[in-house]
Amino acid sequence: MYYHDKRLQYPVRVENPDSLFARQLQQAIGGIEGEIRVCLQYFFQAWGARGPDNKYRDVLMNTATEEISHIEMLATAVALNLEDAPATLQESTAQANPVIGAVMGGERPRHVVEGMLQRHILSTGMAAFPANCDGVPFDCSHVYASGNLVGDMFANVAAEATGRTLAVRLYNATRDPGMQDMLSFLIARDTMHQQQWLAVIEDLGGLKESLPVPNSFDQSKEAQRFSYMFMGTERNGTPVTPGRYSQGPSIDGKGEYRFEAFEPLGDEPVLGPARPDSGAQKEQMAEAPVTNALA
Amino acid sequence: MYYHDKRLQYPVRVENPDSLFARQLQQAIGGIEGEIRVCLQYFFQAWGARGPDNKYRDVLMNTATEEISHIEMLATAVALNLEDAPATLQESTAQANPVIGAVMGGERPRHVVEGMLQRHILSTGMAAFPANCDGVPFDCSHVYASGNLVGDMFANVAAEATGRTLAVRLYNATRDPGMQDMLSFLIARDTMHQQQWLAVIEDLGGLKESLPVPNSFDQSKEAQRFSYMFMGTERNGTPVTPGRYSQGPSIDGKGEYRFEAFEPLGDEPVLGPARPDSGAQKEQMAEAPVTNALA
Amino acid sequence: MYYHDKRLQYPVRVENPDSLFARQLQQAIGGIEGEIRVCLQYFFQAWGARGPDNKYRDVLMNTATEEISHIEMLATAVALNLEDAPATLQESTAQANPVIGAVMGGERPRHVVEGMLQRHILSTGMAAFPANCDGVPFDCSHVYASGNLVGDMFANVAAEATGRTLAVRLYNATRDPGMQDMLSFLIARDTMHQQQWLAVIEDLGGLKESLPVPNSFDQSKEAQRFSYMFMGTERNGTPVTPGRYSQGPSIDGKGEYRFEAFEPLGDEPVLGPARPDSGAQKEQMAEAPVTNALA
Amino acid sequence: MYYHDKRLQYPVRVENPDSLFARQLQQAIGGIEGEIRVCLQYFFQAWGARGPDNKYRDVLMNTATEEISHIEMLATAVALNLEDAPATLQESTAQANPVIGAVMGGERPRHVVEGMLQRHILSTGMAAFPANCDGVPFDCSHVYASGNLVGDMFANVAAEATGRTLAVRLYNATRDPGMQDMLSFLIARDTMHQQQWLAVIEDLGGLKESLPVPNSFDQSKEAQRFSYMFMGTERNGTPVTPGRYSQGPSIDGKGEYRFEAFEPLGDEPVLGPARPDSGAQKEQMAEAPVTNALA
Amino acid sequence: MYYHDKRLQYPVRVENPDSLFARQLQQAIGGIEGEIRVCLQYFFQAWGARGPDNKYRDVLMNTATEEISHIEMLATAVALNLEDAPATLQESTAQANPVIGAVMGGERPRHVVEGMLQRHILSTGMAAFPANCDGVPFDCSHVYASGNLVGDMFANVAAEATGRTLAVRLYNATRDPGMQDMLSFLIARDTMHQQQWLAVIEDLGGLKESLPVPNSFDQSKEAQRFSYMFMGTERNGTPVTPGRYSQGPSIDGKGEYRFEAFEPLGDEPVLGPARPDSGAQKEQMAEAPVTNALA
Amino acid sequence: MYYHDKRLQYPVRVENPDSLFARQLQQAIGGIEGEIRVCLQYFFQAWGARGPDNKYRDVLMNTATEEISHIEMLATAVALNLEDAPATLQESTAQANPVIGAVMGGERPRHVVEGMLQRHILSTGMAAFPANCDGVPFDCSHVYASGNLVGDMFANVAAEATGRTLAVRLYNATRDPGMQDMLSFLIARDTMHQQQWLAVIEDLGGLKESLPVPNSFDQSKEAQRFSYMFMGTERNGTPVTPGRYSQGPSIDGKGEYRFEAFEPLGDEPVLGPARPDSGAQKEQMAEAPVTNALA
Repeated sequence: MYYHDKRLQYPVRVENPDSLFARQLQQAIGGIEGEIRVCLQYFFQAWGARGPDNKYRDVLMNTATEEISHIEMLATAVALNLEDAPATLQESTAQANPVIGAVMGGERPRHVVEGMLQRHILSTGMAAFPANCDGVPFDCSHVYASGNLVGDMFANVAAEATGRTLAVRLYNATRDPGMQDMLSFLIARDTMHQQQWLAVIEDLGGLKESLPVPNSFDQSKEAQRFSYMFMGTERNGTPVTPGRYSQGPSIDGKGEYRFEAFEPLGDEPVLGPARPDSGAQKEQMAEAPVTNALA
Repeated sequence: MYYHDKRLQYPVRVENPDSLFARQLQQAIGGIEGEIRVCLQYFFQAWGARGPDNKYRDVLMNTATEEISHIEMLATAVALNLEDAPATLQESTAQANPVIGAVMGGERPRHVVEGMLQRHILSTGMAAFPANCDGVPFDCSHVYASGNLVGDMFANVAAEATGRTLAVRLYNATRDPGMQDMLSFLIARDTMHQQQWLAVIEDLGGLKESLPVPNSFDQSKEAQRFSYMFMGTERNGTPVTPGRYSQGPSIDGKGEYRFEAFEPLGDEPVLGPARPDSGAQKEQMAEAPVTNALA
Repeated sequence: MYYHDKRLQYPVRVENPDSLFARQLQQAIGGIEGEIRVCLQYFFQAWGARGPDNKYRDVLMNTATEEISHIEMLATAVALNLEDAPATLQESTAQANPVIGAVMGGERPRHVVEGMLQRHILSTGMAAFPANCDGVPFDCSHVYASGNLVGDMFANVAAEATGRTLAVRLYNATRDPGMQDMLSFLIARDTMHQQQWLAVIEDLGGLKESLPVPNSFDQSKEAQRFSYMFMGTERNGTPVTPGRYSQGPSIDGKGEYRFEAFEPLGDEPVLGPARPDSGAQKEQMAEAPVTNALA
Repeated sequence: MYYHDKRLQYPVRVENPDSLFARQLQQAIGGIEGEIRVCLQYFFQAWGARGPDNKYRDVLMNTATEEISHIEMLATAVALNLEDAPATLQESTAQANPVIGAVMGGERPRHVVEGMLQRHILSTGMAAFPANCDGVPFDCSHVYASGNLVGDMFANVAAEATGRTLAVRLYNATRDPGMQDMLSFLIARDTMHQQQWLAVIEDLGGLKESLPVPNSFDQSKEAQRFSYMFMGTERNGTPVTPGRYSQGPSIDGKGEYRFEAFEPLGDEPVLGPARPDSGAQKEQMAEAPVTNALA
Repeated sequence: MYYHDKRLQYPVRVENPDSLFARQLQQAIGGIEGEIRVCLQYFFQAWGARGPDNKYRDVLMNTATEEISHIEMLATAVALNLEDAPATLQESTAQANPVIGAVMGGERPRHVVEGMLQRHILSTGMAAFPANCDGVPFDCSHVYASGNLVGDMFANVAAEATGRTLAVRLYNATRDPGMQDMLSFLIARDTMHQQQWLAVIEDLGGLKESLPVPNSFDQSKEAQRFSYMFMGTERNGTPVTPGRYSQGPSIDGKGEYRFEAFEPLGDEPVLGPARPDSGAQKEQMAEAPVTNALA
Repeated sequence: MYYHDKRLQYPVRVENPDSLFARQLQQAIGGIEGEIRVCLQYFFQAWGARGPDNKYRDVLMNTATEEISHIEMLATAVALNLEDAPATLQESTAQANPVIGAVMGGERPRHVVEGMLQRHILSTGMAAFPANCDGVPFDCSHVYASGNLVGDMFANVAAEATGRTLAVRLYNATRDPGMQDMLSFLIARDTMHQQQWLAVIEDLGGLKESLPVPNSFDQSKEAQRFSYMFMGTERNGTPVTPGRYSQGPSIDGKGEYRFEAFEPLGDEPVLGPARPDSGAQKEQMAEAPVTNALA
């Protein structure tokens, strides 16, 4: 069960509201690198956690709950950045600020409106919504919860790595001290979350034990000739530039990397003809050889 | 530029066509763990690769090209599994096979049709399409290419880990020797791909060097008090079950994990009232205090 | 900020796991009538709440937080309903239960697998995911938060009305006493939520005060001749069957309903021709009159 | 069956074409508050209407048909607002109007192009398309038709309330007299539509009779202890600010609102371990206790 | 402006309701080959039609309006096919029909429920909704209206060709005489619609005049060396099997087809390094050469 | 199986990087008229091709493979157009170019940032991604592969016609000689692809033989009275403006076009009442006649 406290997890203040930065912050709310994604991802991993004990369920639950607080901070930041945004012609004419001026056709530079997410004006009443910085709604297919604990941990590290990259880009895009302070907190949390999901893999025995994912499949059933081969697809057989990925022992300690310029092992596939009454053209059916109009 | 060879990368044969297995294979084509995703993901990472040399672009390009061949194998497998699928009433009555029988209302068990993706019957003419096993089309928002090489490598490992988990589940779901042989190859390749993306991180100096992602951000700017703290959100302050994620040195070697039951550091947020002419109710505006109907 | 308690808000138990009911419960998680939708909807309404005080923000926050607990209950119910679901061929042969039998081609009726969401088998490891009962992921465009408090309350009533309708249908679809007990709780909460959102409208002065939404727009600016007219579009001018919607005083007390068989007031629209170099056919451009091949 | 008249339902004229306003009008076409949504929503409610007579089917049919005419008006308005929009470099250099000037890199301010929906230039040939003001296509999952008449009426009121809010915001965003005239008509129709859907509820006996939705479920089966309780989730048990929603008789006249700071009634959930061959890690399976690397 | 007649365009009757056929009919409503798509496609093409006169606008308008009537017929057919569908446990026990029996766990075969779209039970009250036969909602991005009249006509022919293919498959999938009669009408209309859109191209002067689309672009600006060459991409240079597409005069009469095994004309692309503070890894930046861990 | 060559199919060079043009080019990558669509469309048509020989499979395979190379060219062009794009505040202050200046609030015109796809800054590190020019990700439901060869060819012609229209608009939108050169190549290829898909229809015997699609359905089963009739839906029976589509022989040579102002042939539909326990209102059920509140 869940509870709330009216206060924010960390202070959110905006000194110079900026409607473009409000748009950019949306990526951290409803983007695929954003907080709704990790929040729901950790929750669904927790709620579906299977195992001999509930240990990793608890770890996931704490961080999932933390992420709700981050969405709240960012949604608050979006609303504050939209406080002075140009919304209507009516108010613009009455506005005192000569620097910003009227909204459309008036004194306030028109491009400020043009650069906004139009739904911040038309659909939300100057508030955040669960979409990204270009206005695409968040889609829950991005909630990765595979039922394989290590696979999920890698998905979580990936989410936090792209999430911290986004937070850094947002930090670099603003000069507002309040916004930079808020982002310095979120960046720190993304640091920890990268660390902690990797630590869960350690807790499970480390990379060697955990790989390949899933480690419960009997590797003798896989076509092991291909399990540690870097497959070259360059037309003329040129090898890939050598690196850790093409030589030396594999990360899981169970093989040795090698390069091979690959040639097809299969045949050209042949499907059966279309069946009668299947909605194909009659020329696709067995009895009707295709006439080559040139012949 | 790209080229093709008419032959398949690896043999694909189906001994006992099964329209339900055709449906399940769709997940490996158009699911988020599937091959279209990794194919496009590696291509977009390659095409956008920035760096002092083109080394990682080449690594990505080889594997992206390999993945097209995997989609081709799976699409072929779907079509072959649909070769005998019940398609029309007309043909079912004429069918010799008494075991399978008529399709709808006839001798062939109706549930076989019910269990199919209906678009295999109605929209594709008994062939694969770029959707998952429940019929949801693949959506390219799942192509992760962040411009951060290590972040992308983690996304790639996650994709291959969930991809191999899927391939193992498919292997376990069929008894067809041809399908198991094909999957034993794909499972082996997923083994290698997990290894090779982790090897790229090694090639870049290893986890300590690479973390936190992005490693180009000056960590003195982040709120370091929170960078290695496991944040507890249990209502009564109960600590998380201890583990690698809450004690000991961090994976990046730059901190020490610790647990803290967290209390709010911010205030209750206060947004400005709705502005005149903003489309809100007048009770939301500054001049119009809300009447409590009970008062 | 948010907190969790490890215990569920209300008991969830399943006596007879049913993989089809697991599929149906997904609608209450990730359907448009489901709990993720109302949870995020109330949160975004709360986080963006503007007004002279924070009163309605608090109301929304309590119920938003409650809804997380409902998602948790339902996700748990899905996982429990999948406990015995047929997952692999391997385990089916070893299974003792002769009633259920093998999965595919074996003793367990194949249609049980056919009726499942295939991603419950292939993608989640027998757990819930944020999609509906036909497998379509939840899409956050369904999170309605308009910035108009009364408009949002109607959206909330609509969500709870369709939500309770869904819960009733689920109640009627199962005979499991544990599931019926859980649903009797969720149905009761949907009763209250319908009541409380309507009560917020009362709290704001009631329907007459609040309508039309938004009540802050000067109605003298609207084309009032059409404000209370039921527009008939039947080709031959037949009036609609009379009812409250076509006669008597309007709900907002500001007009009188009447019926009118409507005739067009505008002209046939004429757009300018396509411009040179606009990518149209040259026949669409001003200088090139379309040749009627018959003339 | 359906018919058309070449003339528009109401005049549409644009005095000063504005490509940004064309973009904003898209929200009224393809946004979730827009006309495609209500048009299809009323049609599907009508086409699926079940009941002892066809009365409400007719009501819905008239208004659904009206809404097609509104989409037509708005699509015409978008095309007219794009009449002079900057489309190509070629034409901009030949353009006489020195105020607007060249398009990109030329005399016409580049930001005018930047603020447009790029598909108005690249994909539609300066015409409307079924997407919202940020370019996201309309998705028919927003067509609510639940089979419960009162639930649907609330969904319709919500649609018209957010629809009128949008129309008011558009009215306030333009100074074009033609556009304001068109919007004054659409705002009036939204007024009526809010009234008429509430009148249908009156026609069905009013709120007391209709609630809770669905009113056909035997309320003795719901957990009535929770049916009129405002559930508090504040961590420290603080009650919600009192209001109509927490005290006094309920809207349906069947209960009395009260507040309760809620405590969990359920236990911590326990799922079974992952099964062999289910694609999980072996540490998640029953026989393999997780090794805590720290122990 | 639009009008309705209460009667259907063509009779719709169902003798033997079939909930699986209700599911299949959804493809003709909300599938990409379905009627919502062509209805909106023709409307948006009409509403945006630019040209010296309104001739093609009228043609499109008539057929767009016809398509609404088709959606209505199909939605009615879905509802009628669901009349006897198993909806609840409660009613199944009271049902007289011993052949069909109870729904879940009872006498009616469970697989009938399993084969349904679950939203027909849970979300629509046994009625149609705007989604396809696997439950994916229709998405208006499939409404093709390019502003180029001939391009749009080809899109319309494609829509009617796949639409008639679908209708034929539905015809073949049912034995219900009422459904076959309805489909015989829809198939005939699809025949005409294929013919009429091709006739519009004739009306515009025919294929030679109209091609290549757009015919308003000065072909001397295109790289004409490549305009009629069939590009071979087979790795070993094997030519494509000869046919009309690789030899003889082109359809537009402006060139001669020929085959060429293609070799790259460009160089290996080189992008600039990642910039400081761009969120990339520092190894991707100019100053930090990548360390090869093997060196 | 597939192979790559490191070199581009055709040279891609950008003389004056333009971040708005980078945005516009995205439409040719991830728009519905773009290259990912045709690439996957031709591949899935090829992989599912059924017929007496593999001839058309080969044709499709060559062109599908060609299209990968086009995506690569366009992705490279996007990255090059973003080389100098404003990314961060930090670098803007250090930038020497006084014309461009600082990014936000600084010397570089702010509208340049406002006009960008924000994900080019925040999510991709200045590189292409599989979305359109307004940021909407490509969705694989646009991959048309119906199993009917002629239907698919029309879909392919439509794709290449709208694709060439887009390429022409892009050509007209830029003055960069490198970009115009690249587009002149892509336009030429779109010319050929239109020609070659129409040539496949010729190869199959031509339009008369191929129509109506599918030509394998026995036309005596369709309601032939309606097969060549232009259906008029104007309310007052006004005929459509005469043209090739309403008079003269049909394109398939099997009928004669004629016009008919259509009248309904069906009745008003009547659905059964809602069933008990179906979640409808009780007034919708058979036993409960609706009370008209006015009576």
